[in-house]
Amino acid sequence: MQKVAFIGLGIMGRPMAANLVKAGFDVAGYSRRRESAEDLLAAGGRWAGSVTAAVRDAHAVITMLPDSPDVEAVALGPDGIVSNAPSGTLYIDMSSIRPDVARRVAAAGAARGLRCLDAPVSGGERGAIDGTLSVMAGGAAADVDAARPLLDAMGATILHVGPAGAGQTVKAANQLIVAGNIALVAEALVFLQAQGVDVAAAVAVLAGGLAGSTVLTRKASSMLAGDFTAGFRMELHDKDLAIFTAAAREARVVTPLGGILAQLTGAACAQGDGRLDHSALMRVIQRLCGLLP
Amino acid sequence: MQKVAFIGLGIMGRPMAANLVKAGFDVAGYSRRRESAEDLLAAGGRWAGSVTAAVRDAHAVITMLPDSPDVEAVALGPDGIVSNAPSGTLYIDMSSIRPDVARRVAAAGAARGLRCLDAPVSGGERGAIDGTLSVMAGGAAADVDAARPLLDAMGATILHVGPAGAGQTVKAANQLIVAGNIALVAEALVFLQAQGVDVAAAVAVLAGGLAGSTVLTRKASSMLAGDFTAGFRMELHDKDLAIFTAAAREARVVTPLGGILAQLTGAACAQGDGRLDHSALMRVIQRLCGLLP
Amino acid sequence: MQKVAFIGLGIMGRPMAANLVKAGFDVAGYSRRRESAEDLLAAGGRWAGSVTAAVRDAHAVITMLPDSPDVEAVALGPDGIVSNAPSGTLYIDMSSIRPDVARRVAAAGAARGLRCLDAPVSGGERGAIDGTLSVMAGGAAADVDAARPLLDAMGATILHVGPAGAGQTVKAANQLIVAGNIALVAEALVFLQAQGVDVAAAVAVLAGGLAGSTVLTRKASSMLAGDFTAGFRMELHDKDLAIFTAAAREARVVTPLGGILAQLTGAACAQGDGRLDHSALMRVIQRLCGLLP
Amino acid sequence: MQKVAFIGLGIMGRPMAANLVKAGFDVAGYSRRRESAEDLLAAGGRWAGSVTAAVRDAHAVITMLPDSPDVEAVALGPDGIVSNAPSGTLYIDMSSIRPDVARRVAAAGAARGLRCLDAPVSGGERGAIDGTLSVMAGGAAADVDAARPLLDAMGATILHVGPAGAGQTVKAANQLIVAGNIALVAEALVFLQAQGVDVAAAVAVLAGGLAGSTVLTRKASSMLAGDFTAGFRMELHDKDLAIFTAAAREARVVTPLGGILAQLTGAACAQGDGRLDHSALMRVIQRLCGLLP
Repeated sequence: MQKVAFIGLGIMGRPMAANLVKAGFDVAGYSRRRESAEDLLAAGGRWAGSVTAAVRDAHAVITMLPDSPDVEAVALGPDGIVSNAPSGTLYIDMSSIRPDVARRVAAAGAARGLRCLDAPVSGGERGAIDGTLSVMAGGAAADVDAARPLLDAMGATILHVGPAGAGQTVKAANQLIVAGNIALVAEALVFLQAQGVDVAAAVAVLAGGLAGSTVLTRKASSMLAGDFTAGFRMELHDKDLAIFTAAAREARVVTPLGGILAQLTGAACAQGDGRLDHSALMRVIQRLCGLLP
Repeated sequence: MQKVAFIGLGIMGRPMAANLVKAGFDVAGYSRRRESAEDLLAAGGRWAGSVTAAVRDAHAVITMLPDSPDVEAVALGPDGIVSNAPSGTLYIDMSSIRPDVARRVAAAGAARGLRCLDAPVSGGERGAIDGTLSVMAGGAAADVDAARPLLDAMGATILHVGPAGAGQTVKAANQLIVAGNIALVAEALVFLQAQGVDVAAAVAVLAGGLAGSTVLTRKASSMLAGDFTAGFRMELHDKDLAIFTAAAREARVVTPLGGILAQLTGAACAQGDGRLDHSALMRVIQRLCGLLP
Repeated sequence: MQKVAFIGLGIMGRPMAANLVKAGFDVAGYSRRRESAEDLLAAGGRWAGSVTAAVRDAHAVITMLPDSPDVEAVALGPDGIVSNAPSGTLYIDMSSIRPDVARRVAAAGAARGLRCLDAPVSGGERGAIDGTLSVMAGGAAADVDAARPLLDAMGATILHVGPAGAGQTVKAANQLIVAGNIALVAEALVFLQAQGVDVAAAVAVLAGGLAGSTVLTRKASSMLAGDFTAGFRMELHDKDLAIFTAAAREARVVTPLGGILAQLTGAACAQGDGRLDHSALMRVIQRLCGLLP
Repeated sequence: MQKVAFIGLGIMGRPMAANLVKAGFDVAGYSRRRESAEDLLAAGGRWAGSVTAAVRDAHAVITMLPDSPDVEAVALGPDGIVSNAPSGTLYIDMSSIRPDVARRVAAAGAARGLRCLDAPVSGGERGAIDGTLSVMAGGAAADVDAARPLLDAMGATILHVGPAGAGQTVKAANQLIVAGNIALVAEALVFLQAQGVDVAAAVAVLAGGLAGSTVLTRKASSMLAGDFTAGFRMELHDKDLAIFTAAAREARVVTPLGGILAQLTGAACAQGDGRLDHSALMRVIQRLCGLLP
């Protein structure tokens, strides 16, 4: 049975690690707080007392951490993965971080004989629990193939999108489009409500044509109901748009909508809505219109 | 057999009028240029020499015209519909125009005993030919019911979305979301191409998650191929965003994305791309990035 | 003594008309409410019971009205200036309105033998009282020369900027730059306050370099003090930016900053600050940052 | 005679170092390329073979470098200032860099007994040559006083704006306002040109009112003439706006105009205009309007 180290047992990491156990892997987990490992232990996994202990004899290492500095610390620190995992280990970072950091980690790992992938996901907590995440993987094709049994245990769609960093690049683009769709739907809903339109009928007709989107189908009714319980937290989406705009700037890509969207998620966080669902961009629009206190 | 006057035999109006004939209506058509009536005549319809002649004994009148001033002229002018159609006539304007003009036409019609609907459509030339348009109708519920046999001949989804003007309001929101989705997909594609990502794989993974949209599914590959043959012309979409931003302003709704999108479609037209498909917003982004001559 | 009809005795029109009396003109005033004429009567002017009565025997007619529709009604209505002023009369509209309306009024006036100018002003209530307004005049050079004795009584700087409509065009550009400078100073002040900088010293150093502007010199300290008593009302500036963006669109000029500024003044009005000074754009930025309730 | 180490002899540093020599200081200069020191040597200064050699016995150290990483390397590297300057040395960084880096350098310096100031400047090459720069200094008041003889030799206005990092914060705000004013003037000029207005007269009237600014006075005529020889290079202004938007984000300040301006300077660089004067933002607007090839 293949040994897997899983670092980062948060809202996403917990069910992902449990799904690996269910698929027959021997999973040793580590997280900052030991309590986070309870689900993993219940599923039949083990607790590793430290990153070093977790990775020392692993065939594969997976990280699922909040932000770029976390991955840098866990991957590149003296007690971290690159310094302590055996040569030949497959290291898959599934966090959403900056593409340039992903490329740096991959280069450092390669220098020590690790086979590194950046493989961020979409699909949210629901997809993590159900094992139906979409995985966008960057790295060598052979390493993506080697990782497939692991990734298949956690996701429904596994796509190799390019070399190191490409997974994070695609994830950044994903977050641009999602934030943009939420903001567009928010502007449209506030506009329709202000005009005395039958909004439910309007949403039905919009969803059926070229304006249709997954955001409109899944999020419009909770947005209209003012239900913004996360879900995917605004503050994480704000972080992701900072990643997107920085990566776009680095690549000399001009993004008029990306620029304004980063301001809007920033406004949501500054206004105290950082822990609400990202669909709470609607509240920024409502405040701009004087419709919220 | 019910007599229908159909004014405006352009790219959309021509197949719509022909579909009414096929459904058994007696259609008298009028357009500025007589040649535009050829399809209608071939289908079994008649040519009316003028608006006045077309509407004088009609049970129902339909207009499908380019812009607000056209509807104002045809509906409210001395030789127009309101002054010449018999009291009780059902008047359905299916053009995409300003909601305030739609409300003004409805009020003028009501004062002369007409039953007025604003019923713009989405679905494009394809939907007009196939009779699968989506129709968003504003006006009295009883009048929408009365119009349903006519609308069913042209569309697949007929929804009553509110009082006079509501159809145009929903159409304006539709055009906001469509333009926004095109621009988001354009920014994402230019970003992905600049980064050496496998863009086809990336589009597949984006389409499968919360970033999914009809625009992404239907338009991304032609945008990547640089194929911008219309389709729905940029200059019409630019007009529609002017309608949206004016209606939003009138309703005191702030639309950060709407504002920037109207600038981008304006740029496309100023750069000479007004007659290309609206997905040519991609070319505006490419020019901003110095990627087009 | 030359007879002048002055229509529109608001905050600006009142002192302007009084300055004409002081300069020796025989001024007959008209406004919607008779009370508005008190200052004019006290200065030695006369009350005209109607527009028709005011203009019938005038050598020159001046209008100073809130918005485009007001000018259209007073200039082009059946009881209005164009129909009732003698041929050869000089008609100077000093309101801030849409350039295309100014051109339409000028054409209608010319058809009846009037010599028309659009001559909007900057300088505010203070400049109107002190007779130090800046006047940007559009029309024929000879007519500007003929109007100069009148304009000199009200303003300190009189510039002929082009043909009919040019005055309004320049005024629209003026309002773009003023709103933009206010917004820039607002963003800078909120940023500096958030960082624990000595803001007074910072403003001094900013004002002395390439960042210097009249807005920074005249408005920064009241903005910092939260004093937003008008002054020039936000709702009028919002109207002016709608004029600018519409005129830019008509001329196929893309204005990224103009587009966002119109959204920001719209937000200020929607948030209930329409009657505050236009420098209250600072409150929109503060609300975006969660700094105001 | 007080010994001063001057690191960074570029377009700005060269004349600044020479002015220190003229004021009677004993200046030892260092730059990556020895040729850069020629002006300093001609003025009577000395060449220091390395940073270490330059700072070892200096009473004061000044750096004038392109960007944050350069300052980090020179200040914090093993052969750098903090490790090699004697305790008690005054270290003044006059580069324009990120406020957080300035605070980090100040903290590292303080830990080794250095007295650190961040003191970026405005005024450009002209001000550097003439010794008329504006200096915005962050740090302890006593250290600003101690630095004043040095700063007076290079600048005309020396202002203490707050604690460590405050100088960079004010400089970032300065760059926001300057870029914004350039973009506003560019939009206004393109708009006025498109309308057949007498643009020179229009600029005169705009400059005299609330729209007046140093940018309008100093830059409008060269912008109209299409003369964009630097001056201050676009690519540096683009870097500065990245600093501003990152610092604003860190401080939870929402900057709608800052966001769009960073996109516009990014577009200018992507379009190949990075080495032109920053007033070439006008070319971005002209390209958006289809007015440049």
